[in-house]
Order: sequence, then structure tokens, then C-alpha cells
Amino acid sequence: MHSPGTKVTGFIVLMIVQIILLALFWLFVRYGDEALPLAEGEELGEPHVSKYPHFQDVQVMIYIGFGFLMTFLRKYGYSATGYTLFLAALVVQWSILVKGFFHMEDGKISLILENIVDADIAAAVPLISMGALLGRTTPIQLLFMAIVEIVLFAANEYVALNIFSACDVGGSITVHAFGAYFGLAVSLMLRPSKEQNEAGKYEGANYTSDIFAMIGTLFLYVYWPSFNSVLADGNARERAILNTYLSLAAATVTTFIVSALVSHENKLDMVHVQNSTLAGGVAIGTVCNLLVGAHGAILIGIIAGCISVLGYSYLSPRITAVLGIHDTCGVHNLHGMPAVLSAIASAIFACLVTKEKYKSELIQIFPAMAAAPENSNSTIILGGYERTATAQAGFQLCAIAVTLLVAIVGGIITGAILKYTGMRKLQKDEHHQDELHWEVPDHKED
Amino acid sequence: MHSPGTKVTGFIVLMIVQIILLALFWLFVRYGDEALPLAEGEELGEPHVSKYPHFQDVQVMIYIGFGFLMTFLRKYGYSATGYTLFLAALVVQWSILVKGFFHMEDGKISLILENIVDADIAAAVPLISMGALLGRTTPIQLLFMAIVEIVLFAANEYVALNIFSACDVGGSITVHAFGAYFGLAVSLMLRPSKEQNEAGKYEGANYTSDIFAMIGTLFLYVYWPSFNSVLADGNARERAILNTYLSLAAATVTTFIVSALVSHENKLDMVHVQNSTLAGGVAIGTVCNLLVGAHGAILIGIIAGCISVLGYSYLSPRITAVLGIHDTCGVHNLHGMPAVLSAIASAIFACLVTKEKYKSELIQIFPAMAAAPENSNSTIILGGYERTATAQAGFQLCAIAVTLLVAIVGGIITGAILKYTGMRKLQKDEHHQDELHWEVPDHKED
Amino acid sequence: MHSPGTKVTGFIVLMIVQIILLALFWLFVRYGDEALPLAEGEELGEPHVSKYPHFQDVQVMIYIGFGFLMTFLRKYGYSATGYTLFLAALVVQWSILVKGFFHMEDGKISLILENIVDADIAAAVPLISMGALLGRTTPIQLLFMAIVEIVLFAANEYVALNIFSACDVGGSITVHAFGAYFGLAVSLMLRPSKEQNEAGKYEGANYTSDIFAMIGTLFLYVYWPSFNSVLADGNARERAILNTYLSLAAATVTTFIVSALVSHENKLDMVHVQNSTLAGGVAIGTVCNLLVGAHGAILIGIIAGCISVLGYSYLSPRITAVLGIHDTCGVHNLHGMPAVLSAIASAIFACLVTKEKYKSELIQIFPAMAAAPENSNSTIILGGYERTATAQAGFQLCAIAVTLLVAIVGGIITGAILKYTGMRKLQKDEHHQDELHWEVPDHKED
Repeated sequence: MHSPGTKVTGFIVLMIVQIILLALFWLFVRYGDEALPLAEGEELGEPHVSKYPHFQDVQVMIYIGFGFLMTFLRKYGYSATGYTLFLAALVVQWSILVKGFFHMEDGKISLILENIVDADIAAAVPLISMGALLGRTTPIQLLFMAIVEIVLFAANEYVALNIFSACDVGGSITVHAFGAYFGLAVSLMLRPSKEQNEAGKYEGANYTSDIFAMIGTLFLYVYWPSFNSVLADGNARERAILNTYLSLAAATVTTFIVSALVSHENKLDMVHVQNSTLAGGVAIGTVCNLLVGAHGAILIGIIAGCISVLGYSYLSPRITAVLGIHDTCGVHNLHGMPAVLSAIASAIFACLVTKEKYKSELIQIFPAMAAAPENSNSTIILGGYERTATAQAGFQLCAIAVTLLVAIVGGIITGAILKYTGMRKLQKDEHHQDELHWEVPDHKED
Repeated sequence: MHSPGTKVTGFIVLMIVQIILLALFWLFVRYGDEALPLAEGEELGEPHVSKYPHFQDVQVMIYIGFGFLMTFLRKYGYSATGYTLFLAALVVQWSILVKGFFHMEDGKISLILENIVDADIAAAVPLISMGALLGRTTPIQLLFMAIVEIVLFAANEYVALNIFSACDVGGSITVHAFGAYFGLAVSLMLRPSKEQNEAGKYEGANYTSDIFAMIGTLFLYVYWPSFNSVLADGNARERAILNTYLSLAAATVTTFIVSALVSHENKLDMVHVQNSTLAGGVAIGTVCNLLVGAHGAILIGIIAGCISVLGYSYLSPRITAVLGIHDTCGVHNLHGMPAVLSAIASAIFACLVTKEKYKSELIQIFPAMAAAPENSNSTIILGGYERTATAQAGFQLCAIAVTLLVAIVGGIITGAILKYTGMRKLQKDEHHQDELHWEVPDHKED
Repeated sequence: MHSPGTKVTGFIVLMIVQIILLALFWLFVRYGDEALPLAEGEELGEPHVSKYPHFQDVQVMIYIGFGFLMTFLRKYGYSATGYTLFLAALVVQWSILVKGFFHMEDGKISLILENIVDADIAAAVPLISMGALLGRTTPIQLLFMAIVEIVLFAANEYVALNIFSACDVGGSITVHAFGAYFGLAVSLMLRPSKEQNEAGKYEGANYTSDIFAMIGTLFLYVYWPSFNSVLADGNARERAILNTYLSLAAATVTTFIVSALVSHENKLDMVHVQNSTLAGGVAIGTVCNLLVGAHGAILIGIIAGCISVLGYSYLSPRITAVLGIHDTCGVHNLHGMPAVLSAIASAIFACLVTKEKYKSELIQIFPAMAAAPENSNSTIILGGYERTATAQAGFQLCAIAVTLLVAIVGGIITGAILKYTGMRKLQKDEHHQDELHWEVPDHKED
């Protein structure tokens, strides 16, 4: 048992982190033009007006969606909602800086609405990883993990989008695959010794906690089209909305059906309903702005629902048994596998891209397939301009491969730090319960 | 007791349904122009941008609003939220097709944002019917009902809006009245034998389930102005928002007052608070874009709150006693009667319509009252152009009459199919509880 | 013990109030131009389109945010959500009238979207006061208080914004400080006799009620940028969003840290997490559209989080012990002190205002600092035009001073009326429990 002193030290370190963030904002962040007063007579541009509702939907997904989705554990609801809020509030500040450092102008980061959209999306990454580890870390460990993870995420995203010029508008590769496999790698490092490998005493839902979790599921479901389309523009944004909507619907129907078919006594399983229904949103993510067709979106949704439920039923128990990797929320089934599916789909659909079909959108969606601009001094793109469709498909696969590599190696190193340094760690009997870190009322549910 | 085999068969049939949906999308659905890449230099139109936030509000109403409103039963929360999700996810796909078949171009359905707005609105119809039946059907029965109901709904809507040229921007006639009376007719067919007519063992709320239900109520309340105004345009949309807002507020105040006055020991009743507060949104639905005046909206809200609470207190018990129709959520009081009120109000306000008052909006809101367009070869409207105000009022009443007829006859036939074919039916002691179809955790609320 | 008759009388009086509201709307309220049909060929203006999503976010904050935030009491969840709905529904009607009377044209109030935005914001005021009193009043007392409070609020707001020309875009002075200190003053008058000063039998959370309260917290958190920015325009709106976002994030991180440091055994306290995290939204309110810089917003958030948690831990118990003022939700720590902080910050930042920095926004944000318009016959502003930065700072401090004065004096008088007139009052053992005014189901949580 660690002394309370360790805990206090951790929180004092965090206070210093917050103050360092304040200093970095002071030094590096300035309002961008669209957040500054106009000169007299200057005209108002309004790119931000149309994205603000999308942004608010993403906010709901991060704080209410993720927060409540993780309340399914019957004694871990304070932590699920509270740590989600804590972690996201820290990460959004950090990721504005980290992502900003990749795109500075005159040594300053320009702050506009887009930066906080990006920050919210980045916050999803450690929250996904947290899902794999839920109930088995201290808040200090989580926050340390998140701080490291955001740096690796931003670097990997830069490689995937700016070096490889891969398309990934809904972030399935850079956000979902990265967050899931990073979290699983950390979980691998934190795996308990063999004799402690059974489920924790408090691991499991009760009736009320399962309904709380549905708040998370349903808000994620409803707003997922906004998540996938917030970075798309023009007509491609509408297409991203339509495809995501259909893929989610098909994944949901499939989830219920497969859940009933594989479950004990053909009963529906809330774990599947809470999670696999959303696999359609992940699986369509990378390709949602492509011309996949309504049927393509539905097909992807059906496949995603299937693999996600089957993953929960058959694969996850095997992974725990064989590798010792616990995955509390099953992020491998909700985020991991569907994201890989999305990456594969993106390679397939990239093969079919032609200038005739994508017209003016080609340069937005697949900039490396377009002709080199007249003055192309500012952008260096791996493989050069006028990439073929097959080459683009190859780069899509490179993007997922590098993502998996960075996530897994980064996760293993991060997990090792969490395990072998002086940070307080949870004992097995401290897992999945709030009482260790929260004042919990005595009152019975009366 | 039916064998598990029946259940498996049902789910396999559903899998086939989902695959048929996939095939139909493949054959008939294409992206509409606003979801397709623009040619170089083509300008972006953006009708969809302004409707997307409305659409997202409607999404919240369907999945969170309806889902949680039905969680008030203390042992039926998984089903309330889960079946809402399942049913809506199936219905939106189906209704895109069914409604699309009424408006095909060159044998194809053009998919744009409007189609999924319409699909979400259509999903409300079987969810309302489900409210009448809540806890007394299997999921397979619900889904079968929904599939049939959507076809009848789409046909009836076509008659009301395109043949009768009735106005019904908030869908009170075509959505709320249809859904409610269809569900009640199905409930009539599924009524238990006389000796089993008392309330079910598990029918009732507990403290927690009643608060969960308030999540549904409050989101429906907050977003109802979006539901009623999403199909309105221009200044009429703002009017629809204002009228709905005021009608809801007045209905809510009235609900609390009447609830206290009619209840035992003058205590407030959560059933009224959860439901009758929303009657103002239904009652203003058909007329919300008309020039009803702020006072008109408030008056309609007051009347709606009154009849809804009185319906719960006095009428519903009579209907159950006399006709044997159970109405678990009281959809007759929330959707049925207020929708009829809305239809009557629409006839009254239609009488007052003049070209001078409605100016450029006349042709949008009451197209049959406008002068015939120069080349009117494409539209045939019952009763011809330049309809008088009184004639329009008559057609409003025809719309609600036909709606009631189609809903009740359709519901009786559908209920008969549910009852007399081989589909598994629930026994009385299986009502209102999740355990039959869901894996429910053993953990006590500890 | 009062007779049931008192209760019935109260509700009948309320019915009369609702009918009077109807009459006043009939007499005084007309649709504004943007809600009326256009003449043929007239062009659609669309200022309202861009504000509607903001408005809907504010709606969620009022009804779901406030409603659920107050569900933390384990036996008062029906009242928390129900009375919030009841009170808000009454107040929005009343405040459209009261605020409208200050801005009539030709003896009529023009109803447009902005009026209902304002009405929702006004509804926050008595809801904040209700937070101070939660569980210690009857619904009739609450509604009486709200009716009086709205009049004083509107008058005070008129003084602060129109006479003093203070800036207060997020309403920290006029809404948060006013609501909090008014509620505390009422609470002072309703304080129990000395021997009854201990906490109520039912005052306290249980595990489930604390998670319900997080629904409120998280929606308030997510949508607070909309609350603060809904009345800002152009680029200043984007700045208001960015500053609010950062202040909230910094306050949240700080809240968790300080909560852990000051709490028993360094455990986190849900009261802090539910409330102090939001102090950043209040504290940035008055200055969120100013050029405070990203670092300024973060610094304000850090200070707000600190004082709010320390207020809960040290100040509130002292206030109760010394003055006998109970503050059920701790509105002094969430709304009161952070709002005063915001006012002080506004004086500081007002000192730094120059025409060079604010350019075309100066006249919008600080109209009294701008040059007098050519025909300034309509506006009389205290202190005249071309106010200096220091004078503006002085008027900011006047605004908060007058607000505190009006709120406290008004609250004391209102509290005296609630206490010394014939209105039914709650006994100590009737506090913080629904059973007195609600039908509560017998069913155990089974």
C-alpha cells in the first residue's frame, strides 16, 4: 500500500502541469484572424458558423458519450464520468499546443474554432485507450498516459495525413485504431500475474448502470455523423453524413440479430447493444466521404456489426486467456477491428477513384492524386503528385500499418513507464471501484 | 411456451430482411446532386447546411427522447432503450425506400439530407405505436408491426399531403395521430382475455426509472421546436419554432396545475409530468407554421395540457375497462387526442387564411389555395387550384378522418396477424420485464 | 400542518396566472417581421438561422442541465427535474412580457427568436436561486419567488446594460451574480430557528443520484460556450466560444486537483466535480468576448476552480454556521463568487481597451466608448459617449455593485413575503424529499 503522500505528490505535479500549459499558451497561442476584431468596413467571413453545431455534437460525444458509455460498471460510475471530464479537460489544452506545434506560423499558434474541433477529436484518443484500461489504473496514471499518447498521436497523424497523404476524414485510422491499440498495448504491460487473471470482484454491470451506459451509446449513435463529417467540406460533408447514418443503422440491426444468435438462450446482451451498434460509425469513418454508395455504407455496417459482436463473444476471451490483455470496455471490438476494416475499405475504394467521378473534390480528398499546383514550393508529399489510384490504395495501407506500429510500440513503452516507475499502481482488489479515489455516500439506495 | 427455435427463426428472418434492404438500396438508391462532387467551377448550394442542426435535434428526440421516455417501467429499461434503437435503425432504412418509391426519378431514389430527415420522422410513427404496446410484445412482433406500419403511414401521408393538399408541417395528423391510433388498434387485437385484465405484475415505475424517463421527456421538450419546424422554410420556420415553444410552455404549466388538482391528496403525478407536458408540442404541430399568434399557441397549449392530464386520469382507465385496450405509455393522451385537437385547430385556422395575410407563403403552406401555375401538367390536386379557405378547412378534416380510418383498420389487421399467425406471443406473466429477452445481471443494486 | 386546501388554492392561483399570461400575450405580443410572411419578391434575411443551434444548446442547459444538476439529492429527483421544468415553463412566458415591456414599439412586443433566447437566459436566474433553496420550499413558493425575481432581474439588467452601458455578454453579472445573491438572501430569510440548524435528514446524495447529477454537469459543461456566445456577434462570437472553452477546461483540471488536495484522505468529492468544474464558465462570462487572450481565459479558469472548491470546503460551512444561510447546491461557489470574479476581470480588461485593438467591434461591445452617432436622439447613456477606458472600468464595477444591492435587498423582501404571508411553508422534517408533493411509487429498487 502506498502512502497518501504519493497521491498528493501526483496531484501537485498535475497542478504544475496545468501551470505549464498556461505558460505555453501565453508564449505560443494567439487568436486567429477569424476570432479577432475586423477593421472598419472589413467583411465578415463565416466558415466557422457552419461548423459550430458539428463541433457541439462532437463535444457531447466526448464528454457525455464516452463518459456515460463507461458507466456500465456498477461501482465505477463516478470515475467513468469524472475521469472522462478530467482527462478531456487536460488533453484538449495539451493537444491544441501539440497539434499547433506542427502548424505554427511565425512561431505562433493561431487559435480558431478549428483548433478546438481538432482538440476534441484528439481527446477521443486517450479516452478510447482509457476504455481498455477502465478500472485498473489510478487517475494519475491515466493522465500521464494521455499526455504521452497525444504527442505520439499527433506525430502519427502528421505522418498519415501529411506525409502519406492518406484520406481519413472520420479518423478511423488515426483516432480509433491508434487509441484502441495503444490502450491494448498499455493493458498488455499492466496485465496482472497469471494467478490473478480472473475477472475482478467488481467487474460487471447492474441494472441501473447498464441503463446509464445507454445514455452514452445513444448520444454517440446520434451524433456520430457529425464526428465523421466535421472535417469534410461542401457536398462531401453531406455524403459523409448520409454514409455514416446508414452504416450505423445497418450495424445496429446486425448487432441485435447476431447478439441474439450467439448469446446464451438467445437473449440479447447489453454489452453488444451498448458497443457493437457503434462499430458502424467507426468502420465507415475513413471512407465516409468517398463515393461508396448507400449500399456500400450499409454493407460496411453489416460487416462491422458482425465482427464486433463476434469479437466480444469469441475473440476477447481468447485474447485475455492467451495474451493476458484485459480490455474492460472491449475497445478492440468497438474501435480496433472496425477501424482496421475501415482502413481496408479505404484501400479498396481508393483503387476505384478517378478524376471523372470525384471532379472538383479530388484535390480535397486525395490531394496527392491531383496535378501538382503551379507553385508547389510549400508542400512536399511522399510519392509526388498525380499518384495513381493503386498507389493511393497502397498509402492507405501504409497509414494503418504505421499507425498500428506506433500505437503498439508507443503503448508498450508507456505501459512500461506506468508499471516500472514510482507511480502508484492499483492492487487487484482495488480494481473497478470508486471508493479508493472518491468520497462515496453511505446512504443505501433507499 | 414456445421453443427457443421460434426466437432463432425470427432473428434469421430479420437478418434476411436486412440483406434485402441492402439489395434494394443497391438497386434503387443513388446520391442526390447535393451529395455528389461538383464539377470544376460549379457553385456550392447549401440548403442542407441550415437543416442539419434541426436534423440532429430530431435524431436526439427519436433515439434518446423516445428511448428514455419509455424507461419509466422499472424492469423494462433495457427493452425501452434497446428496442427503440433496434426498431428505429431498421425503420429508417425501410422508410427511405418506401417514401422514396413515392418520389422516384428515372426509377431511382435520390438520397440527400432530406431523406434522412424524413426517415427519422417516419421512425417516430412505430415508436409511438410501440408506446401503446410497451412490454406486451416480443421484439420480433414489434419489428413486423413497424415494417407494415411504415408502408401504410407513407401511403396515408401521400394522400393527406399530396392528394388532399392538407397542411401538416409538424406531422400531428400524419405522424402522431397515425402512430397513436394504429398502436391502439393493435393493442385492441392483442388485448388479454377478460380475467387477465388487471395491471401486470411488473407494470409500474420505481424511483430511479421515473428519473430516467425524465431524460426522455426533457429532450423531447427541448427539441420539439426543431421537430415541428424542420420541414418549414424561411420565416415560417421561425414562426413554427416560436409557436411550438410557447405551446409547450403553456401545456407544461397547465399539466402541473391540473395534475395537482386531480391527483390523490393533490400530489403531482410523474406520469403526467413525463407525458402531458409534451402534449403542447403535438397539439401545435399541424398549425405551428400558421398565423395563430402567440396567444393562439398558448391557448392551444393550455387546452392540450388539460385534455392530456384528464385523459390519463379519467379516460384511459375507462378505455381499458370498456374496450380492453391497454395503453402502457398513454399514447392516446400524449399523441392521440392532442393530434386530433391539432387537426381541428388547423381546420379553424384554415378558415381564416387569406392571400393578404400569408402573402408569398400561401403557395408553400397551402399550395391548393394558390393560383394554378402556368404549366400545371405535373401536379394533380384533388379539388383543383384556388381552393377557398372553407374548402381547405374541409380537406384538413378529411386528412384527419382518413388518417384515423387507415390507422385503425391497418392496426386491426396488423394486430390480427401478430395474434393469429405463428409468431411467438408473450404470456401475461412475461409482460413488462426484460429478463425474457435480455441477459440481466444478478448483481443487486449494491 | 396546513390543510390540503392551501395547496389547492395555490394551484388555482397559478391557473389564473397562466390565464393572465394568455391575456397579456393576446394584448401585447405580435410576431416580429422575421416571423411574418414576406411580400412577393421580398428577400429573406436570416439572422435567426445562425443563432438557432445556439438557442437549442441553451435550452438543453436550462431544462436538462439545471434539472439534472439538482438531482444529486437522493430523495428529491422528481422535484429537481420537475420543478425546473415547471418553473422554466412559467418564467419564459413571463419574461418575454417583462423584458418586452422595456422594449415595446407602438405599444406592442415584437416576438422573434431573440425573445425566446432572452427568455431562456432569464429562466436561468430563478433556477440559480432555486439551487440555493433546493428542498426547502414548496413549488408555490418557488413560483411566487420566480415571478417577483424576473421583474427585478429585468430592471437590474436594464440598468446595467442600458444605463451603465456595462458589457456582460455571458450574463455573469446580470444572470449569475443576481440569481445567486437573490437566492441566498431569500435563504437568509427562510433560515430555520437555531436549534434546527443541522443538515436535513434527507440532505445528501446516494450513488445513483450523484450519477444523475453528472448528466446536468456534463451538458452544462459542453454547451456553456453557446450560453456565453449566443448574444455575441461576428468574430467576437467565435472569441467568446474559444475563451469559454479554455476557461472551463482549466477550471475543471484545477477543480479535480484542489478537490483531491483539500478533501478527506485526498479523495475526490462529487460536489466539487459536479459544480466547481463549471465555475470557469461563469468566471469568463462577462469578459469572454474581450481580448483576454487564450492564456487570460485559462488563468481565469484556474482561479475560478480554486475559489469554487475552497468555497465549498471552507466558506460555505462558515456562512451556514455564522449567518444561518443554507445553500443546498452551493450556488455561492458555482455562481456567486465566480460571477464577482468575472465582474472584476471585466473592469481590469476594460482598462486595457483601445480603439486600435477593438476596431469595428468597439461600438458593439462598448457602445459608450464609441463616438456619438450623428443623430443620437434615441439613446441616452449615463456618462455620455466617448467614455475613457477607466470610466468604462468604473461602470463595470457599478454594474456588479448595483446588481448585488438589488439582488440582496430584493431577495430579503421576497423572502420575507414567503415567510410571513399565508403561504404554506415546509417544516424541517419535510425538507429534501419528494413524498410530500409527489406520488412516489412503493416499489423498492428491485
